[in-house]
Amino acid sequence: MNVELISVGTEILLGNIVNTNAAYLAEQCARAGLACYYQTVVGDNHDRLKETLENALKRADVIILSGGLGPTEDDLTKETAAEVMGMELVEDAACRQALQDYFAARNMEISENNWKQALVPQGGRALINQNGTAPGIIMEKDGKHVILLPGPPVELKPMFEQYVFPYLNALEPEVILSQTVKICNIGESRAEMMVKDMIDEQTNPTIATYAKTGEVHIRVTAKAGDEAAAKKLLKPIVKELKKRFGSDIYSTDETCTLEKAVADLLCAKNLTVTTVESCTGGMLGSRLVNVPGISDIYKVGLITYSNKAKRRLAEVKKTTLEKYGAVSEQVAKEMAKGAAMMTRADVAVAITGVAGPDGGTDEKPVGLVYIACSVCGKVTVRKNRFQGGRQKIREAAVSAALTLMRQCILEYYSEVTFGDRK
Amino acid sequence: MNVELISVGTEILLGNIVNTNAAYLAEQCARAGLACYYQTVVGDNHDRLKETLENALKRADVIILSGGLGPTEDDLTKETAAEVMGMELVEDAACRQALQDYFAARNMEISENNWKQALVPQGGRALINQNGTAPGIIMEKDGKHVILLPGPPVELKPMFEQYVFPYLNALEPEVILSQTVKICNIGESRAEMMVKDMIDEQTNPTIATYAKTGEVHIRVTAKAGDEAAAKKLLKPIVKELKKRFGSDIYSTDETCTLEKAVADLLCAKNLTVTTVESCTGGMLGSRLVNVPGISDIYKVGLITYSNKAKRRLAEVKKTTLEKYGAVSEQVAKEMAKGAAMMTRADVAVAITGVAGPDGGTDEKPVGLVYIACSVCGKVTVRKNRFQGGRQKIREAAVSAALTLMRQCILEYYSEVTFGDRK
Repeated sequence: MNVELISVGTEILLGNIVNTNAAYLAEQCARAGLACYYQTVVGDNHDRLKETLENALKRADVIILSGGLGPTEDDLTKETAAEVMGMELVEDAACRQALQDYFAARNMEISENNWKQALVPQGGRALINQNGTAPGIIMEKDGKHVILLPGPPVELKPMFEQYVFPYLNALEPEVILSQTVKICNIGESRAEMMVKDMIDEQTNPTIATYAKTGEVHIRVTAKAGDEAAAKKLLKPIVKELKKRFGSDIYSTDETCTLEKAVADLLCAKNLTVTTVESCTGGMLGSRLVNVPGISDIYKVGLITYSNKAKRRLAEVKKTTLEKYGAVSEQVAKEMAKGAAMMTRADVAVAITGVAGPDGGTDEKPVGLVYIACSVCGKVTVRKNRFQGGRQKIREAAVSAALTLMRQCILEYYSEVTFGDRK
Repeated sequence: MNVELISVGTEILLGNIVNTNAAYLAEQCARAGLACYYQTVVGDNHDRLKETLENALKRADVIILSGGLGPTEDDLTKETAAEVMGMELVEDAACRQALQDYFAARNMEISENNWKQALVPQGGRALINQNGTAPGIIMEKDGKHVILLPGPPVELKPMFEQYVFPYLNALEPEVILSQTVKICNIGESRAEMMVKDMIDEQTNPTIATYAKTGEVHIRVTAKAGDEAAAKKLLKPIVKELKKRFGSDIYSTDETCTLEKAVADLLCAKNLTVTTVESCTGGMLGSRLVNVPGISDIYKVGLITYSNKAKRRLAEVKKTTLEKYGAVSEQVAKEMAKGAAMMTRADVAVAITGVAGPDGGTDEKPVGLVYIACSVCGKVTVRKNRFQGGRQKIREAAVSAALTLMRQCILEYYSEVTFGDRK
């Protein structure tokens, strides 16, 4: 079975918004085992939308349209889809009630044009919207499935999860299961080289690598008659990946981020942590704070942008700053040591670098970043040379800092030794 | 003239990456005065790509394809486009040289399949890639323009700016000019209401509102025979918007961000600034550090996640914490005052709130955030109630903090008084 995605919205055609819905729906359809060969974006225009939908019906079994279900005259996805499917629009009592409830709960008056949202193609199924006023719709006719979803992601995603994913899953007899192996400390090309033979040999499961900032994700996807059989196919591949990448794998859990893996490690070892940032200006702290419950181990962080702040808050010596400059191995080391002492944290990470666009020299070019990590007094410093603009360099530095923290903690507890394999 | 965008890449169809190229290209094409009615995504598949391109050629004057120009066998955008256009691929000497130079500069050996990237459709124009190995290509035949661009945004964007935008601009006799009026302190629906009459009345220039986190952007776009005439059309509309939104407009400059506007204001008043963050954990500091050259005024920031850190680094009183709790007006105020004193900064901003997902109570629900700003000793506190998940709440808090800083500085210097118009 295959699926085609049609995103409806002039604001996407004008580049005013990025089409994140298509990425979400594509990923979910792959998860449900449906192949997707085309995605189309079309404006809120009856003729073009009709042509696009008719075209999609010729080549796909399932068509998911998103957007254009609002109450205004511009919104005509439902009207056009019903026309193409040869279904008449009729008022749905449950939808009318849901609309009334929605407005009543918000103490808002319902306007006349809102009632349009209670209309449903006869024979179609309405999906109640818990987060907005436009119901979703599922239509089925002659073996073709047309699904309409509201455009706002906060409405589309929960509706997809609750109604559409189970519906699609039931269409496909096969189960698709995937697992992501998440790797840090290794560059993309090296990681690709390390699994090239596996990618070339495998057809089920398939293996694919994805580069993220400072990380590489390898996704293994298996297709089988039932979940147990799919799991059985995944197991030896994941095992082989674990053998090849060893401790550079920080997680095989879909929802785990690098900062979450580091936070879990800190919690497991009962270690408190502090950050002392120069060029990243709080970005590492902010990323750690992405993890709910981090307050148990992350009590305080320092943003020491000026030399004076480095001296006063992290006890970096004036002579060190003068002799080596703020962007140096020595200053990074003293920042980490000083911050650990000043905040009485077990682990301290320091970042100092040249994020650009100005301030680079031949000796210290834009992208040069020193990262130091102190674990219970043992300090490791790493020199990095990142590419890209100011924002890219800072993001890369934060990922590298998380990677270094992870390594230093694991090494301190003598669990593993890491090489520098970038 | 109209344009159609075709993004080539199986990774987009699988939802592994978000199609940001399409949004960028769509926005740029609108800037160049080209109408766009369709965007399509298709995989690295010869037959489907050919069909998609042929279809696009029937309905558009300009077709921009991105992706699929790599050196591997999977990449076949160039081969397919040349076939559809009836052009033969021949080696281009300049492209060959550029490839050699690219690899030599990186001390890398060139592999055999890379030479494929030096092939160009005969009669087409190669666009040298400064940031990668795949050249872009412009083909013209029978009044149709087919443009190929490499997929990675870091390669696509500079190439578009340098070669493609001037090329498209020359195709359109009319000049399109737009200006964005950037507003803070006002919610989207209120801003829309305030300009609804203008949106309804205007056809040239057109007026459109865009909601950003904590901001609203109003874009005014004029079409005219030359730049001077377009500017003349824009002027009265922008003037009217300035009249309606007054000091809530932080910039009318396309490249200016809210943090840049705040940084410029601090510099203009010769004020140093510090941040003291709880639930945002460094995100405000990180956003200020987005602005190059911020080091002149932003010397130090504090991340005081724990109560102890609030007491020790920002001198918040133990009794205040006990009496009102960490998320309170009183603590926010003391954080700002204390941080200003401790770091000797002229301006201090404090953020304390419940970002969730846990930790909310009836009295202090998830999304409750207090923001305090001290300007030369005068402290203002604002209570906010943000919606969404942990990340959304934190982003909204940072935008609100920047907005409050801007207001407090302007009010301190008695330039304006602000109401709370959310």
